[in-house]
Amino acid sequence: MAPEPLAALGRRAKAAARILATATTGQKNDALEHAAEALIGASGAVLAANAEDVARAEAAGGTEANVDRLRLSEARLGQMAGGLRAVAALADPVGEVVEGWTLPNGLTVRRVRVPLGVVGIVYESRPNVTSDAVGLCVKSGNAALLRGSAGAIASNAAITGALRSGIAKAGLPADCVVLVEDTRRETVAEFVTLRGVIDCLVPRGGPALVALVVDHATVPYVIDGDGNCHVYVDADADLDVAERIVVNAKTQRPGVCNAMETLVVHRAIAPVVLPRLARALEGVELVGDEAARAILPGIGVATDDDFATEFLRLKLAIAVVDDLDGALEHIARYSTGHSEAIVTRDYEAARRFTREVDAAAVLVNASTRFVDGGELGLGAEIGISTQKLHARGPMGLRELTSVKFVIEGDGQVRS
Amino acid sequence: MAPEPLAALGRRAKAAARILATATTGQKNDALEHAAEALIGASGAVLAANAEDVARAEAAGGTEANVDRLRLSEARLGQMAGGLRAVAALADPVGEVVEGWTLPNGLTVRRVRVPLGVVGIVYESRPNVTSDAVGLCVKSGNAALLRGSAGAIASNAAITGALRSGIAKAGLPADCVVLVEDTRRETVAEFVTLRGVIDCLVPRGGPALVALVVDHATVPYVIDGDGNCHVYVDADADLDVAERIVVNAKTQRPGVCNAMETLVVHRAIAPVVLPRLARALEGVELVGDEAARAILPGIGVATDDDFATEFLRLKLAIAVVDDLDGALEHIARYSTGHSEAIVTRDYEAARRFTREVDAAAVLVNASTRFVDGGELGLGAEIGISTQKLHARGPMGLRELTSVKFVIEGDGQVRS
Repeated sequence: MAPEPLAALGRRAKAAARILATATTGQKNDALEHAAEALIGASGAVLAANAEDVARAEAAGGTEANVDRLRLSEARLGQMAGGLRAVAALADPVGEVVEGWTLPNGLTVRRVRVPLGVVGIVYESRPNVTSDAVGLCVKSGNAALLRGSAGAIASNAAITGALRSGIAKAGLPADCVVLVEDTRRETVAEFVTLRGVIDCLVPRGGPALVALVVDHATVPYVIDGDGNCHVYVDADADLDVAERIVVNAKTQRPGVCNAMETLVVHRAIAPVVLPRLARALEGVELVGDEAARAILPGIGVATDDDFATEFLRLKLAIAVVDDLDGALEHIARYSTGHSEAIVTRDYEAARRFTREVDAAAVLVNASTRFVDGGELGLGAEIGISTQKLHARGPMGLRELTSVKFVIEGDGQVRS
Repeated sequence: MAPEPLAALGRRAKAAARILATATTGQKNDALEHAAEALIGASGAVLAANAEDVARAEAAGGTEANVDRLRLSEARLGQMAGGLRAVAALADPVGEVVEGWTLPNGLTVRRVRVPLGVVGIVYESRPNVTSDAVGLCVKSGNAALLRGSAGAIASNAAITGALRSGIAKAGLPADCVVLVEDTRRETVAEFVTLRGVIDCLVPRGGPALVALVVDHATVPYVIDGDGNCHVYVDADADLDVAERIVVNAKTQRPGVCNAMETLVVHRAIAPVVLPRLARALEGVELVGDEAARAILPGIGVATDDDFATEFLRLKLAIAVVDDLDGALEHIARYSTGHSEAIVTRDYEAARRFTREVDAAAVLVNASTRFVDGGELGLGAEIGISTQKLHARGPMGLRELTSVKFVIEGDGQVRS
């Protein structure tokens, strides 16, 4: 059977979104509870489907890490169900009156938080994204139109099948979740131009996907972009704090977007701090500029490319700067606007750094690894936005909403 | 002399934006006061430049309305200067702490409002947009990169020259305002792809410009789109209120986006209200569906196209619907998501309409003409967004900002 055309799938999601938009919090929570239950209930089928995907990935010679990201287990399914229940427990952003006032002519004005409509998500391997995204979308009143990868298609189909049946059991349309099962490459290009269907696209993938979205999307989108994050160790840094933060930001989980990629050090403190940090970072490949290499002669040369690269592994570039201005210049040049940290005891340096660095998050004497929806107390997150419009930084439920003006009167007209 | 390349102009605006981002409210207000003064001081040169543009438009056979939109006078310049001073008097959105909290580990988290950076504006004839846009951009800490029309180039160059000198006099970079003087059509296409330069594009023009932006822009943008606005007269409407609102929404200023384009009437009240409204709308060209024409036999046929068209003139389409659901369906089908109104005395109808209509603004017993930044008390506006991300409805100073997370600690790391 030919796959259902993308536009038809989109219309189904759109129709469901209109109903979901006015569902009560209780109905949505019910739907998530039932979805969690259905997911557990379908664990046999989901794991069997997942085994197919895993076998296909292994046969294709996928790396162990990739296969592992794909693999589900009873425990992982339990976490996915737990995630749905945790989102059900979060406050509903829909209906919040953001602000309101009364005009001199007696009109009352409220800005009320409303769902976006259809949230489109393009994502790669990990099938747990499927249930995470559905949880956040449904709780915020949005239908989810999902385009996962070919590699996880059997898993995603089984998971969405379970979630849909749970949602339907709660009396909401199963089409609150629609999976695009046609995973040919061309469908991504078509997906990002479903204007009038997708109200917000969240691409979750690497630079190639982001570039495709930026160049070709006609639907509104929020970019979950790269994190080329810096930690700047100021002349006046507490060395214990610097060591703790640098080690944590680089090594605690090097493969994620809020990990540090470049260490920037004030010239005055470099001879003291660099040898100490190099020892603490044992096992990390270090590359540095000329000044850094004069202090750490054993390390490689950091090219311009290194400073511009999100390594996502145990590699660190080191730049030595003359002063705070030099650090600000380096960061302005190479930052992707994700998370940038300073380690200092100097009040003025902290104040300038937080004001002048242009990023989703700026940190003083804290690890960049805290820039995460869960860590910051936002509840779950659907991604970390590196753009400035709509959402910036970790995106939670509220970032999956819009607002509308509700204006009430008793016959007022404009003169 | 060859015009300066667009990318170079963009870099100048970008560099200015970095300085402007940390300017105090006092400095920005000073700059606007000086800009207003400089504009008045340069009125001779500006009016001479404008006379060139007007002569060119007349020679090219421009319509009287178009020439009039282009024409400046001492009085209009006075209004433009007054507009700059009015924006100076508005509250500065930059630095506002949107929210903040302390985490269990002692980290303090604040979300602080910050400028976007460079705001790009592509606009058509009216040269007063130049100073209006500059006022809003500078007050919100953004550099303005302006691409006006060829028809107003002499006026725009003279106006921006004056504004730049005023801003420089206040000690801020003149490049807070950069005008693209190369008005060949190709520069628009290049303008909308200045990624990394333009942080937010606001296209102010007709459907062709909006389509170009949607299809080709790689920079983030906010669409100031069409307003195909409806007024729905419910079965239970107060007829005096209905007449007042319908007449106001259609005729008070028909050429603007918040004017009514389609009247939707409940079948039960149509035989009574339509003849009365038709009399009150004397001079307005009416077209209607079959049911409307049965009551008003003299009017033309409303085609599907009519229902989908923003007439922007004294023409009105009329649809008769069976009930509130029919009205909601009609609006969902044809609305551009701008402003939609209901006239009713029925509590439940008002409640459903405000919840279920998906638009930037929904109104009960009030004219759609109120959907305007000034009328709603937001101060000046740079446009009315019909998109759902970032800004929806009238866009004031706050919509020209982003937020950043400022996270302060004393050595916290993630475990």
